[in-house]
Amino acid sequence: MPRHPRKSDFPVSQVRRYLEPGPIVLVSSKWRGKTNIMTMGWHTVMEFTPSLVGCVIADGNHSFHMIRDSGECVINLPTTALTDAVVGIGNSSGATIDKFREFGLTADEAREVEAPLIRECHASFECRLHDDAWVDRYNFFVFEVVRAHVAASPKHPETLHYTGDGVFMVSGKIINRRSKFRPEML
Amino acid sequence: MPRHPRKSDFPVSQVRRYLEPGPIVLVSSKWRGKTNIMTMGWHTVMEFTPSLVGCVIADGNHSFHMIRDSGECVINLPTTALTDAVVGIGNSSGATIDKFREFGLTADEAREVEAPLIRECHASFECRLHDDAWVDRYNFFVFEVVRAHVAASPKHPETLHYTGDGVFMVSGKIINRRSKFRPEML
Repeated sequence: MPRHPRKSDFPVSQVRRYLEPGPIVLVSSKWRGKTNIMTMGWHTVMEFTPSLVGCVIADGNHSFHMIRDSGECVINLPTTALTDAVVGIGNSSGATIDKFREFGLTADEAREVEAPLIRECHASFECRLHDDAWVDRYNFFVFEVVRAHVAASPKHPETLHYTGDGVFMVSGKIINRRSKFRPEML
Repeated sequence: MPRHPRKSDFPVSQVRRYLEPGPIVLVSSKWRGKTNIMTMGWHTVMEFTPSLVGCVIADGNHSFHMIRDSGECVINLPTTALTDAVVGIGNSSGATIDKFREFGLTADEAREVEAPLIRECHASFECRLHDDAWVDRYNFFVFEVVRAHVAASPKHPETLHYTGDGVFMVSGKIINRRSKFRPEML
């Protein structure tokens, strides 16, 4: 078994560091004693404080009602070490299988929510449903990240970015333009 | 001067190909005869048909009122060839400068909207404001992409993905897992 990332607390107001570049994420949930995981690519940071993330969860997903009814989830950040799990989770349904068991993932206890953290992911963001007013209109959920767990190393994890049609872009090199930013824009 | 990408019509229902991986984009607008450009990183695909994109445009931006009042914009996809422009545009205000002139960009006429296309970008998506119900609540705009222009080459442009603090991740290698997808999931 590969060693899993060692995570520590991370400021919730800075989750844009990981979510703004558009990685595919794994959303874990728990409802009435059962857990589930879904793959998600349609999400955006919406605010720093409170730390808000908006995302589309299609109502055909088994996770849809689990997340809506529990009002919670965990957004987990997988790396290329989990590519097969990301694809498998996105192409199966929690209605018929236990995704943690099927894909060899470990459910760790979260601190603020009942939904589990996925141990093998680089980061896990515990979320509470902040606004469900657009769930009926667009399947659009606004979550507040209430606690964040992030691995210190590697500093720039190799994340997966979906482009449709079964193709992923993998995160590449890092360029720093900090010196060109006005301080208030950082 | 560098040659600019040659773009052709692209199906609006497939703009996820370019937007889902989370690139920073340049949003161009026009209102009362003046144009402007802003840098944007908080956006998500919301639907295929109609082709909907949701995004946060902070009300402190000069573009905010131009886009809200005109009900239009163009979302343009820059590559690393435009890194300096992306940073400069994000750290200046259209209230005091003409961003097309200042950053050496060319405003081309769009087909469906008054806002201009940015010629030097890899792709340009003409947008009409589809839903402004959450502009007051979250500065959140839902746009419909009504026409898309995309360069055929390179197939995988080197896009910029912002991580905060002046640091960008550049799109990296491509991995294809098409054979592992259920047909209806592609």
